[in-house]
Amino acid sequence: MKPYVIGIDIGGTNTVFGLVDARGTVIASGSIKTAKHAKVEDFIDELYEKVSHLIESNDAVGKINGIGVGAPNANYYTGTIENAANLAWQGIIPFAKMMQDKFGLPVAITNDANAAAIGEMTYGVARGLKDFIMITLGTGVGSGIVINGQVVYGHDGFAGELGHMVVKRNNGRLCGCGRTGCLEAYCSATGVARTAREFLEIRTDPSVLRDMPIDQITSKDVYDAAVKGDELAKEVFEYTGTLLGEAMADMVVFSSPQAFVLFGGLAKSGDLLLKPLKEALEKNLMTTFKGKVQVLMSELKEADAAVLGASALGWEAKMID
Amino acid sequence: MKPYVIGIDIGGTNTVFGLVDARGTVIASGSIKTAKHAKVEDFIDELYEKVSHLIESNDAVGKINGIGVGAPNANYYTGTIENAANLAWQGIIPFAKMMQDKFGLPVAITNDANAAAIGEMTYGVARGLKDFIMITLGTGVGSGIVINGQVVYGHDGFAGELGHMVVKRNNGRLCGCGRTGCLEAYCSATGVARTAREFLEIRTDPSVLRDMPIDQITSKDVYDAAVKGDELAKEVFEYTGTLLGEAMADMVVFSSPQAFVLFGGLAKSGDLLLKPLKEALEKNLMTTFKGKVQVLMSELKEADAAVLGASALGWEAKMID
Repeated sequence: MKPYVIGIDIGGTNTVFGLVDARGTVIASGSIKTAKHAKVEDFIDELYEKVSHLIESNDAVGKINGIGVGAPNANYYTGTIENAANLAWQGIIPFAKMMQDKFGLPVAITNDANAAAIGEMTYGVARGLKDFIMITLGTGVGSGIVINGQVVYGHDGFAGELGHMVVKRNNGRLCGCGRTGCLEAYCSATGVARTAREFLEIRTDPSVLRDMPIDQITSKDVYDAAVKGDELAKEVFEYTGTLLGEAMADMVVFSSPQAFVLFGGLAKSGDLLLKPLKEALEKNLMTTFKGKVQVLMSELKEADAAVLGASALGWEAKMID
Repeated sequence: MKPYVIGIDIGGTNTVFGLVDARGTVIASGSIKTAKHAKVEDFIDELYEKVSHLIESNDAVGKINGIGVGAPNANYYTGTIENAANLAWQGIIPFAKMMQDKFGLPVAITNDANAAAIGEMTYGVARGLKDFIMITLGTGVGSGIVINGQVVYGHDGFAGELGHMVVKRNNGRLCGCGRTGCLEAYCSATGVARTAREFLEIRTDPSVLRDMPIDQITSKDVYDAAVKGDELAKEVFEYTGTLLGEAMADMVVFSSPQAFVLFGGLAKSGDLLLKPLKEALEKNLMTTFKGKVQVLMSELKEADAAVLGASALGWEAKMID
């Protein structure tokens, strides 16, 4: 087996890639803008250029065992990316095959959140856990479900879309998936910004957020305001954490995990998010599960977790006919 | 290995048991009233008496390999029944050990819905399916989740409590589990009766159900009225099927099953329940899953499915120290 793999994490905004060795060290890494490319062919061209440079400048030419990719709506079984809500490339894209043809290397792909779960299980806070749910809180809400030590792929390769559980059955917000009321429309970074805008429009109490153009408010702005003690901004996080905790209590009745692992930019909001989240989770758990479910924070660097998880697939990737 | 096993299905109302051979034939069966016994010891005494008689009258003395039990809140790992909402026996009951001491045979237990799922996978409509969710619609709503051919037990043995997903976050009905708004409070046989009472109280349109004492209306009464064309009764089933279909769409994002298998008295309501259920399921599925999920009806006789599933555990049961 050759000594390196390439791990690639495709997000709605950025794509991060890294050269990883057999011990799980990210030797070198880089990134490109996903959203820059309307056509997947152009995206792969830029990725090939940048990854090739990374391989050459680290003396790894001819030493790459395979490529592992984490991407939204990626199908582990077929190697395709299918109608991903957060990507410009619609339809069913034979991504693994296209990458293989370009790189001349075997390529395996999975959901980005599944890749993060594998990374966390192999190198992070989920080491030794056999039943846990990874929740990634970024542009969207992703999830990777591990049951009895195995990632749950479902019969078609698309299991673990917990960001699209419906948390508001009536009058819910429009989600990127085309439906309404999904968890992702509320508990993602964009969801936090939407909640802030909603609060600002409906309410009249003062907030430092009123000093900026309402359409330009980001989750980072809400976080900064909350840290400074802005009451409205703090309530946005309470609302977000409560909704997420309630949804997590419903996930527990499915697979009874010993822990949730939270990951992603929004997960770094500390007690602003975690306190209401843990309270809502515990309050809404069935008696059977009360006091049994841990909420853990990812221990891996944000970029590394997804890249490491994806890269793990590179060791077992096989050439597709 | 001895040629027979005993399968026992403990429900909130009735307990059914059977003598089963290696080919999955229920040689003989019987039942007792679960709710009759406030103390679990008395329940086990009556069960022992009846099951012993069944064994003797079928020339199976000394030929029983083990006993498999399906019961609410049964823990596969520890052999205990823990705080089951629908049973009179509260606390943590070492049921497998108590049964073993009484019968002198190895005993294994699991959730009654998990047992039904195993029965369906071994002998019923789920033969050959590796990813499906069994939904049992009886006094309560139970579930047995199969992923990649394995029953999901979770880290503590209590996974698969989908009857306690919250489907009404605000102002939901009180559930037997102590919380409010659970699927079970709406889509069980008792839930159907509760919905009928609610409709009768709130609405003023005529219904044959108004001819009986409101507190004595059962799901069977509602079914009979609906079959006769009673509009209010038909709408009770539409409401029930829609809520269940919506909840099932949320289950799909978790494990992406190829099918649901419906089982239990309420599942026999035919299109009254199935039509709105299938419409709501399909309408609420993420695009990724549309058209992929089958809704199947159990092919096993109601009593047999649970007994057969439970009995399968009897082949692998081991004596507990």
